[in-house]
Amino acid sequence: MIRVLLVHDVCLVRSVLSQWLSRQPDLRVEDTPWRSAPGRVGAVRPDVCAADLDCSDDAYGIPPLGDLCPRGGGTPPPRLLVLASAHRPGLLKRALEAGALGYVDKAGTPEQLLRGIRRVAQGERFVTESLGFGFLKAAEMPLTRRELSVLTLAAEGASVAEIAGSLHLSHGTVRNYMAAITRKTGARNRVDAIRISQGQGWL
Amino acid sequence: MIRVLLVHDVCLVRSVLSQWLSRQPDLRVEDTPWRSAPGRVGAVRPDVCAADLDCSDDAYGIPPLGDLCPRGGGTPPPRLLVLASAHRPGLLKRALEAGALGYVDKAGTPEQLLRGIRRVAQGERFVTESLGFGFLKAAEMPLTRRELSVLTLAAEGASVAEIAGSLHLSHGTVRNYMAAITRKTGARNRVDAIRISQGQGWL
Repeated sequence: MIRVLLVHDVCLVRSVLSQWLSRQPDLRVEDTPWRSAPGRVGAVRPDVCAADLDCSDDAYGIPPLGDLCPRGGGTPPPRLLVLASAHRPGLLKRALEAGALGYVDKAGTPEQLLRGIRRVAQGERFVTESLGFGFLKAAEMPLTRRELSVLTLAAEGASVAEIAGSLHLSHGTVRNYMAAITRKTGARNRVDAIRISQGQGWL
Repeated sequence: MIRVLLVHDVCLVRSVLSQWLSRQPDLRVEDTPWRSAPGRVGAVRPDVCAADLDCSDDAYGIPPLGDLCPRGGGTPPPRLLVLASAHRPGLLKRALEAGALGYVDKAGTPEQLLRGIRRVAQGERFVTESLGFGFLKAAEMPLTRRELSVLTLAAEGASVAEIAGSLHLSHGTVRNYMAAITRKTGARNRVDAIRISQGQGWL
């Protein structure tokens, strides 16, 4: 029996998907939205966490993946499988960094999700072929960590002065970072750089 | 028998939701992503179009609702039911303008979707109670049509000069519009106004 915790923020979808998975005799499925996922991991002790990478709680949709697999706990953490899209490589990269073992393309069939869950439960890696291009793009992420911090603040509506204050930088340095970001993302200007980076899932 | 066309851009979700609806003896369900929805409406001639308001094809996620219910065709257009969220009032407003008869909250249960489809098939209005607040916010949309056009171009990364050129306005007028938009949305600056407006579903 594989204990699965399904993490998805859209209640209607989560409910139908959970029912669909529960028809499999080898799965015992519980489900939760992202905001209560960390607590449920502790209570359910799932073998596999199957988590949708689109998270509606946070303004920019970055899911708190690290909270699903806390390191250093007494019991082994659940194996992580993510439901992902090839056109948001930034989220794929985050899942990779969080140690996800399974990557199922949401543009694929639900049967692939089943296969993924069973493989990941065995401790094996599972990647839907169609996500390949997304991983390629993820490897090409053009921004440094510092540039991402600057852009994240800008996307929240902070001014150059506010960004400079938050990151202990001079105004000129912030402007230089913004210019580099605009160039590297191929954007026309700051707003365009934010738009592109959010679309790709970097922000 | 109610012929339903389910419109949803996430293949895995669409497939599971379609299977779930198909278990009902009174429904005959077909499904499609947004990009092929208009063609499928013509081919399937559904009684009810059940369409997810989140549309991944367009950069800003505004679904082409008008294409689902073409006016003036030979046969009566399908009745439109939308899967919506209270926190994106801009999309609720668009659905209202497109003549949608049903509004089902995605934060609710799939059973409500079933009830909605059956009610709408009878030609009756159906609104999940929890969407009430969203409609209230939709009625309060602070921007004029002109301000929305300006902000839409800004969100696509256009500069003041480019916006002025596109809309045949002076640079000063565009700046005045941007200032009004920033004030009315309660934003800190232009980037913040875009962020807020996209979050609400106005853009």
